[in-house]
Amino acid sequence: MNEFELIARYFTPPARRARVGVGDDCAVLAVTPGHELAISTDMLVAGRHFLPDTDAQALGHKTLAVNLSDLAACGALPRYALLALALPEVEQDWLENFARGFFALAEVHEVELIGGDTTRGPLNLCVTVLGEVPAGQALLRSGARPGDEIWVSGCLGDAALGLAHLLGKRDLDAAAKEYALARLHRPMPRVALGQALRGLAHAAIDVSDGFLGDLTHILAASACSATIELDALPRSAALRACPDATLARDCLLAGGDDYELCFTAAPEQDASIVALGAQLGLAVTRVGRVESGQAGTLRLIDHEGREVPVGRRGFDHFSGN
Amino acid sequence: MNEFELIARYFTPPARRARVGVGDDCAVLAVTPGHELAISTDMLVAGRHFLPDTDAQALGHKTLAVNLSDLAACGALPRYALLALALPEVEQDWLENFARGFFALAEVHEVELIGGDTTRGPLNLCVTVLGEVPAGQALLRSGARPGDEIWVSGCLGDAALGLAHLLGKRDLDAAAKEYALARLHRPMPRVALGQALRGLAHAAIDVSDGFLGDLTHILAASACSATIELDALPRSAALRACPDATLARDCLLAGGDDYELCFTAAPEQDASIVALGAQLGLAVTRVGRVESGQAGTLRLIDHEGREVPVGRRGFDHFSGN
Repeated sequence: MNEFELIARYFTPPARRARVGVGDDCAVLAVTPGHELAISTDMLVAGRHFLPDTDAQALGHKTLAVNLSDLAACGALPRYALLALALPEVEQDWLENFARGFFALAEVHEVELIGGDTTRGPLNLCVTVLGEVPAGQALLRSGARPGDEIWVSGCLGDAALGLAHLLGKRDLDAAAKEYALARLHRPMPRVALGQALRGLAHAAIDVSDGFLGDLTHILAASACSATIELDALPRSAALRACPDATLARDCLLAGGDDYELCFTAAPEQDASIVALGAQLGLAVTRVGRVESGQAGTLRLIDHEGREVPVGRRGFDHFSGN
Repeated sequence: MNEFELIARYFTPPARRARVGVGDDCAVLAVTPGHELAISTDMLVAGRHFLPDTDAQALGHKTLAVNLSDLAACGALPRYALLALALPEVEQDWLENFARGFFALAEVHEVELIGGDTTRGPLNLCVTVLGEVPAGQALLRSGARPGDEIWVSGCLGDAALGLAHLLGKRDLDAAAKEYALARLHRPMPRVALGQALRGLAHAAIDVSDGFLGDLTHILAASACSATIELDALPRSAALRACPDATLARDCLLAGGDDYELCFTAAPEQDASIVALGAQLGLAVTRVGRVESGQAGTLRLIDHEGREVPVGRRGFDHFSGN
C-alpha cells in the first residue's frame, strides 16, 4: 500500500463543513461570522509521550484528545483537525485501529479531519486542531487577577499513577489499575466545560504537563502569585489508596497527562461554577487563590495553613525529569 | 535550557496580526472578512526529506518553504505558521541557525509564527501554515477541463539533480552544483504566482513529489487525461548538461522537491499567463494539454509526436522508490 492509497483508505473522510477537505494542496474553510479561530498543534513521540506498545486505538483517541484539550482551555468549539504522522512501516491493523480511535473521538465532538501528511519515519504523531470562539471571548492564560479563586476540574494525578504502574514503579489493584489506565490512555478533553467557562472564568489552561507547572504558566502570564491548599486538590479513590505517599504527591502536583482544566474566577462566580459542574456531571473543585505577589510564584499550604515545600512542578521534555 | 526557555528564546515572536500568538494553549486569529482560510501541514523527517547533515539554516528555510508552496498552489496569501519540532537534543547553534532560516523566509512573506510544540525525539519538523483566499476563489486540483493547456513555472528536476550529487550518483561541475544545491536546499515557493493565477487558472498543484505524479493528482481529481510534450518541459542549463540521460529524465519527470507550480488554464489565457511570468521574472512554460480520456492517465510524446514510455512518476514515502 503506497502513501496515497494509505491516505485514501484510512484518512479521507468526505468534507462536510469545510469547503475543501483532505485531498488538495490545502484545506479551505470559512469561519462563522462573529467568530475567531483558535488553533493549536501538539506533537506526540513514541517513548516520550506514550509507551511504544500502547494500543493503537487508545493512541488514536489520545492523539486527538490532547489537542482538543487545548481548544477546551481557550473555550473554543472544536471544528477541524489535521493529522501528520510518521510511521516506521505500514501495518494495516495498527492503522485501522489508530483511525478507529481517532475518528470515534472526532465524531463525539463533530471534528472534521481536513488534511494531513503521511511519511515513513520514527513514529511521530502531530495533530493541529482548529476551533471557533466568539470574537474576543477566548479564555487566555493571562487573565487571572488577584482575589480570583483557582479551580480544577475532575481529579489530578491519575494518568501519572497509571504510568507508574506500567513502568513497574507501583502495583495497583485491579480496579485502581483499570481506572488509572483509562485516565492515561483515554483522557476526555473538557470541551463542554471550557466553552461554558467563557464569561465566567478569567483565565484557563489545560493540565497537561503537571498541575503546579501549568498553574505557574497562568501566574506568569497574569503577573500574579497564588496559594494552593494541598489537601483541597481533588484526588481519586485510586490515588488516595496509593500507599507510596511521595509517588502519590508527585502524581498529584506534577504528574502530567491529566487533561483537566485549571481556571481562575472571581469569588462571585462560585455558585455558577458549582452549578455548571453539576450540570456537566463533572467535579469542579476550588483549590486556592490568586494573589498579588511575585509573578509566577506559588506556595502550598496544608490544612492548618502551614507552608509545605513545593518540590517538582511538572514535566519538561528537555530537562528529562 | 529546558523546553520553555527554548521556546521563549527562539520561537516566541510577538503577536502582530494574530489576536493571540505563541504562549497560550491556542493561538487566536480573525480571518479577513470576505475571505476563507487555506491550511496545510507538512512533516519533514531526517533521512527521508533531508539528509541528516543538512545545514540548519537551509533546513529552517525549507521547512517553511515547502508549506508555503502548498498555500501558493491554492492561490492563498500566507498569514500564519505553527511549528512543531522533535529534537534529539538541544543544540543552541543548530536551533539558532534553524530559527534564522525559518524566520528569514517568514519575513519575506510576512508570515507570523503563532504556535507550535517542542519535544525530544528523532528529528522531525512539522509545520502548519494558514493563508487567506477570497471566498470561493481557491485554486483546486479538481478544476482542470479538457482543452486546458498545462503550464509549469521555473524548471523541473534541479533539486533531484542536486540530491543525486549529494548521494554520489553524479558529479556536477562547480556552477551546476551550486545552482542545483540551492534549488534543493532553498526552494522559493511561488507565492506571488499562485495568487496571481486566481481567476486565470482552472487547476493548480505544487510540484513536490515529482512532475508526472503531481500532474496525475490534478488529472485524477478533475477526471481528465493529458498529453505532455517531453521536449517542452523546462530544464535548467545544469540539467541539460547532465550526461546521464536516464538520471536527467528521472529528475525532470519524477524528481520531486521542485516546488514549482503546475497549473492548467484555457488557451485564451495564454497571453495573460506569459505576461504574468514576465512581470514576476519567472519562466512559465506550456508543456501539454488536458484531454477527455481516462481519468488520471497521461501520455508523453516526443517532438515528432511519437508516444514515449512514461516510467516512474514520482516519489512515494511508503513504496520507498
